[in-house]
Amino acid sequence: MNNSQSKRMRIRDLGIKIGMFKPGRYNAITDVPGVLVGHTTIIKGTGTLVSGKGPVRTGVTAILPKSGNIFYDRLSGGGFVLNGAGELSGLTQVMEWGLIETPILLTNTLSVGTCSHGLVKYMVEKYPGVGREYDVMIPLVGECDDSWLNDIAGRHVRTEHVYEAIENATSGPVEEGNVGGGTGMITCDLKGGIGTSSRKLPPEKGGYTIGVIVMSNFGRLLEFRLDGIPVGKLLAPKIEEYTIRRESYGSIITVIATNAPLLSQQLNRLSKRAALGIGRVGSIAAHQSGEIVLAFSTANIFSRRSKRRAYTLSILSDEHMNPLYQAVIEATEEAILNAICMADDMSGINDHFSPALPLEEVRNIMEMYIRYRI
Amino acid sequence: MNNSQSKRMRIRDLGIKIGMFKPGRYNAITDVPGVLVGHTTIIKGTGTLVSGKGPVRTGVTAILPKSGNIFYDRLSGGGFVLNGAGELSGLTQVMEWGLIETPILLTNTLSVGTCSHGLVKYMVEKYPGVGREYDVMIPLVGECDDSWLNDIAGRHVRTEHVYEAIENATSGPVEEGNVGGGTGMITCDLKGGIGTSSRKLPPEKGGYTIGVIVMSNFGRLLEFRLDGIPVGKLLAPKIEEYTIRRESYGSIITVIATNAPLLSQQLNRLSKRAALGIGRVGSIAAHQSGEIVLAFSTANIFSRRSKRRAYTLSILSDEHMNPLYQAVIEATEEAILNAICMADDMSGINDHFSPALPLEEVRNIMEMYIRYRI
Amino acid sequence: MNNSQSKRMRIRDLGIKIGMFKPGRYNAITDVPGVLVGHTTIIKGTGTLVSGKGPVRTGVTAILPKSGNIFYDRLSGGGFVLNGAGELSGLTQVMEWGLIETPILLTNTLSVGTCSHGLVKYMVEKYPGVGREYDVMIPLVGECDDSWLNDIAGRHVRTEHVYEAIENATSGPVEEGNVGGGTGMITCDLKGGIGTSSRKLPPEKGGYTIGVIVMSNFGRLLEFRLDGIPVGKLLAPKIEEYTIRRESYGSIITVIATNAPLLSQQLNRLSKRAALGIGRVGSIAAHQSGEIVLAFSTANIFSRRSKRRAYTLSILSDEHMNPLYQAVIEATEEAILNAICMADDMSGINDHFSPALPLEEVRNIMEMYIRYRI
Amino acid sequence: MNNSQSKRMRIRDLGIKIGMFKPGRYNAITDVPGVLVGHTTIIKGTGTLVSGKGPVRTGVTAILPKSGNIFYDRLSGGGFVLNGAGELSGLTQVMEWGLIETPILLTNTLSVGTCSHGLVKYMVEKYPGVGREYDVMIPLVGECDDSWLNDIAGRHVRTEHVYEAIENATSGPVEEGNVGGGTGMITCDLKGGIGTSSRKLPPEKGGYTIGVIVMSNFGRLLEFRLDGIPVGKLLAPKIEEYTIRRESYGSIITVIATNAPLLSQQLNRLSKRAALGIGRVGSIAAHQSGEIVLAFSTANIFSRRSKRRAYTLSILSDEHMNPLYQAVIEATEEAILNAICMADDMSGINDHFSPALPLEEVRNIMEMYIRYRI
Repeated sequence: MNNSQSKRMRIRDLGIKIGMFKPGRYNAITDVPGVLVGHTTIIKGTGTLVSGKGPVRTGVTAILPKSGNIFYDRLSGGGFVLNGAGELSGLTQVMEWGLIETPILLTNTLSVGTCSHGLVKYMVEKYPGVGREYDVMIPLVGECDDSWLNDIAGRHVRTEHVYEAIENATSGPVEEGNVGGGTGMITCDLKGGIGTSSRKLPPEKGGYTIGVIVMSNFGRLLEFRLDGIPVGKLLAPKIEEYTIRRESYGSIITVIATNAPLLSQQLNRLSKRAALGIGRVGSIAAHQSGEIVLAFSTANIFSRRSKRRAYTLSILSDEHMNPLYQAVIEATEEAILNAICMADDMSGINDHFSPALPLEEVRNIMEMYIRYRI
Repeated sequence: MNNSQSKRMRIRDLGIKIGMFKPGRYNAITDVPGVLVGHTTIIKGTGTLVSGKGPVRTGVTAILPKSGNIFYDRLSGGGFVLNGAGELSGLTQVMEWGLIETPILLTNTLSVGTCSHGLVKYMVEKYPGVGREYDVMIPLVGECDDSWLNDIAGRHVRTEHVYEAIENATSGPVEEGNVGGGTGMITCDLKGGIGTSSRKLPPEKGGYTIGVIVMSNFGRLLEFRLDGIPVGKLLAPKIEEYTIRRESYGSIITVIATNAPLLSQQLNRLSKRAALGIGRVGSIAAHQSGEIVLAFSTANIFSRRSKRRAYTLSILSDEHMNPLYQAVIEATEEAILNAICMADDMSGINDHFSPALPLEEVRNIMEMYIRYRI
Repeated sequence: MNNSQSKRMRIRDLGIKIGMFKPGRYNAITDVPGVLVGHTTIIKGTGTLVSGKGPVRTGVTAILPKSGNIFYDRLSGGGFVLNGAGELSGLTQVMEWGLIETPILLTNTLSVGTCSHGLVKYMVEKYPGVGREYDVMIPLVGECDDSWLNDIAGRHVRTEHVYEAIENATSGPVEEGNVGGGTGMITCDLKGGIGTSSRKLPPEKGGYTIGVIVMSNFGRLLEFRLDGIPVGKLLAPKIEEYTIRRESYGSIITVIATNAPLLSQQLNRLSKRAALGIGRVGSIAAHQSGEIVLAFSTANIFSRRSKRRAYTLSILSDEHMNPLYQAVIEATEEAILNAICMADDMSGINDHFSPALPLEEVRNIMEMYIRYRI
Repeated sequence: MNNSQSKRMRIRDLGIKIGMFKPGRYNAITDVPGVLVGHTTIIKGTGTLVSGKGPVRTGVTAILPKSGNIFYDRLSGGGFVLNGAGELSGLTQVMEWGLIETPILLTNTLSVGTCSHGLVKYMVEKYPGVGREYDVMIPLVGECDDSWLNDIAGRHVRTEHVYEAIENATSGPVEEGNVGGGTGMITCDLKGGIGTSSRKLPPEKGGYTIGVIVMSNFGRLLEFRLDGIPVGKLLAPKIEEYTIRRESYGSIITVIATNAPLLSQQLNRLSKRAALGIGRVGSIAAHQSGEIVLAFSTANIFSRRSKRRAYTLSILSDEHMNPLYQAVIEATEEAILNAICMADDMSGINDHFSPALPLEEVRNIMEMYIRYRI
């Protein structure tokens, strides 16, 4: 099987629409105005693992919640831990203060420290008051385990890779699949990685945009469902033959952005619904799997330098949250599917091979279902 | 449409198997040895609502986690709140102590107090030491809102209904649909109510039984999925025409039993996976919806009268939890489907009509999918 | 020892000032404008316990967060469970929605159901739309165990007692000690019960009022501290001789009110600080002890009938929360001390005797300390 | 004032005994058999802050929960977040799995990343299977902000400092005050830092040892209480005159060890009681303050390499937890006092000066109280 990158496409380009709401312009988290995404992809070497030498299949993805100075002008934030067998450094403070104060990085498990250090360095240089006139800050760094393809113990992510991911960050289309933190990740025994999707609510439901980006690294082929259809089970006979699977179950980090004016407590609740989207792809949130969700709203700015005693905020009524819940479930499901659809075959350490989802087969399976459904 | 009770059947009798594991003997929570279930169903009057007079469409379901004296010989317990727009009285203590000390009752929202009072009365009479030689106890009472069909504000549940439900409790097959606490409940704009299902793990995965019972009262028709298939969307045109839908989104209470030797913290984690099962049926865990899960293990007894400083316990390794996670997702999904499949048409207050799922239509839809899949 | 009620006085009347901020006019939760408190006290019989006959030493305390229709015009609410060996029915929904929709009742453990039922009945009669045009509601009912003095298993609280407590509710001074839900409660082996206190922040800290009311039923004499001074240890030799102590450790329910414009998440955080106030009196939050805190802000109204998509709210900056944290710790400590200082001796079932704090002795002890400190 | 290190002494050496239980041999966390503690203290330069140059007043403290291979042979763990304005990386997984798998490091806020990276490097070298035959691991790194004395933005902690702290770790007496992660920390406007204490329960209460170590960096002088006595207020006039105080409120990280056989859920509950100990010293858990608690039990080993389906564990009965609760409150209070008593005067960046607690004054104050109390 040869699924070269040129042939990969997003799930929607296969003619499969997830859910009832329409995506934003790029069908990406960057559809939420102000949100930027950048990657550093590190791929080096092939063959036998020599720890510290490689092969390397890893990277860093940076999500900038807003284009300006997020340390001064903070956003409301929240999150949810479906299963805590993982790490998103800085989450404790987000849950307490309900604020996002730094970029968000995604990387491999053993590079969290490096990314955290790199992000501190970056912030200190960029915003010289950190830890002086102003408080210190606590970086947000999420991780999944790419050790089946990558020399994870070799810790190949360096400070400069953090800088590069942040500086690469742009609005517009987001690279997906084997890029950034997702480079060495696997999903449902297929090659996974970074995926994104968005929904734009119709005007009568508020017109808000909800974007999701995932670093997807969880699951088993037999559990894999595509829009409810048990595609994993149908594909299994074909994929079984040429792959040895990793034993571990993996994890997924999900980041949600919206321009709806949500408080932290509402973002916590929104984050819980992402878990339902993960579940729709087939996840059982296995014991070894970390399902951690982070969310932020770009609608209100919480200035670090304000001395006001009280402030006035525009807030979405809870009674109007349901379309956002629906949207985040849809966008999470589609973001995971995009990660799988866009990721190409990859070989890594010790010639471990992770196959791409065979798109043509999937198209055939789904067309039959879709034909019937219409 | 006339779906008389005689024609109702469980989802598996329609030829549809949910998931990969096999059910226990009765495909019910009572497959977990020692677990008993009983109902009191209260149906009275028709036509216009006169609060306090009726019509009445409600009841009480009692789950006895073990047949003996649960106040003395307690079980380990846990739970999870996916969405807390509801009540399961007594949950706070379960989460703190990790123990189940009383039967579990399910009823309508405005009868929680009556059921709590009735259960206290029952326990005090049955176990005379309560609040004297021994501590007091806190009843476990979960609720959903059946006000679309039932004169809920009339509070028609009485103490004697609590006694009746407890005394009715038996092992073996469990009545489903329009019974007990589920009498007036609605699911995905179809008649819902009580449903149950179980899984028996194969010996090489521990051979444990996991049973689930739900009082299912959530969701929208357009969201309804049956084994991943968007059956709700396909049925909508046919059901639209003859029903006026309630505005509220409803709720679901889920109770999990297992004979696997699980600690409270493991039961908490297991409870989280029930949420994924609820999500597979289409729930978005709407703002107004309470998704509360309670779980217990019958494997170890925690005696109230023991004075031991330390005790020895057999505990399942976390590394072996995944089959239970899979099983609880499957059994939760199937329990909800059983609630819908077994519930017959019901008219209630002000001639509100809740249609049963048209089983023949569903069978046709699913047969086409199933044929394809095999 | 004879401590007749006429001689009881509040801690501040003993010349002891807790903390740095000044109380409000009545030094009571009712200093927060709009908050009303009422009690029903049930005292009947003496001598040997005959379950169902008495002796009875119990009651109901009602806290009305606002004088108008709280079901329609809701307040923001929050809470915290320091130790969950207890029950505050309805807390789950408060934590999810961040709203207070009903009066708050305090009673004995086995009367929670009756109070919940009584409150539903009251609300349904008072606000006829409950469960019809409008959603259902979930009563807030907290409990402690008064079984050492009261025939708790006899369940002597009736629906009419709930009505009476609500209808008794007024602003202004609050009765303390052996009243309402606190009638049969014990604190640190001394007679406890209901206590309240408040703080009014100086204008430069926002001028907000913070009120606390407790139903105090926890602790051991040897742990008891009064403004940090180990008064329990110093009194122990004198009290030891004439009292047999209960074995159980008891519990405490704390309700916080403020007119500061706080969101639910801020009220959750504020509630956590009440735990520090409880700790200052000497609590170890024993295994058997339920420490549950509920909080609400009267500053903003959340209308049930509003259909607005978004609303504008005035919110206190988190950076200005510290004086409120300080105030709630002080007021919680003082409310507990008021409960102890105001509660007179009480005999209950089987001639169990709970001695009042000997105020003269305490005055002597504290005067020496106070003299030194000034 | 000149408080040279030679004159510093622990609170107990001042004749002040906190609480009712006796300390272990060293009155340190290392009294729990197997627990080791090591420090790296980094002090360089004086005068004006030049970021990246210094002055440096920081370090790393390493707590090794057991002397052997903790990656293979794990311990049960738990925790509690009283206030989450801080970071203890890795806590999410501890709360999910209930296991401690790595050493625990304490450092300054902006060095968490470096310490995390350094600990990964150390573990990978020491236990070569990490991320290969075995899972990856997530380091436990807690932080406080020492920026009032230390060039925190200069990030002077290096990988070698992590190694040094771990390799320095020993049983027996633990250095306190201006050492390791505590080097630049401040408590209640006095010099704080590292402190430790322990309790050994009497045999009839199980004979268990409970040890606590804190990195103490919180609070205001006026709040400071010593065994309940408002020593801060009494000292304030003397200390006011020569110090400029930092504006931020600081934080505290608390680590609890015990050889009592506790499950994770019990350790979570135990951790909550540490908050009460922090409160006794005067903390209001200010908005900006992170109070994070981590706890572990050395009694049971959870082997990473075990393939058992179920295992048998000895567990302490919850009914026997109260002495441990008492002990952890006492030891936390005393550990903080030890940090303050043992920390000498320190000057840091821009000649910021943090005065040591004047021990002679305190002795005088307390002697009067103690004389009275006996």
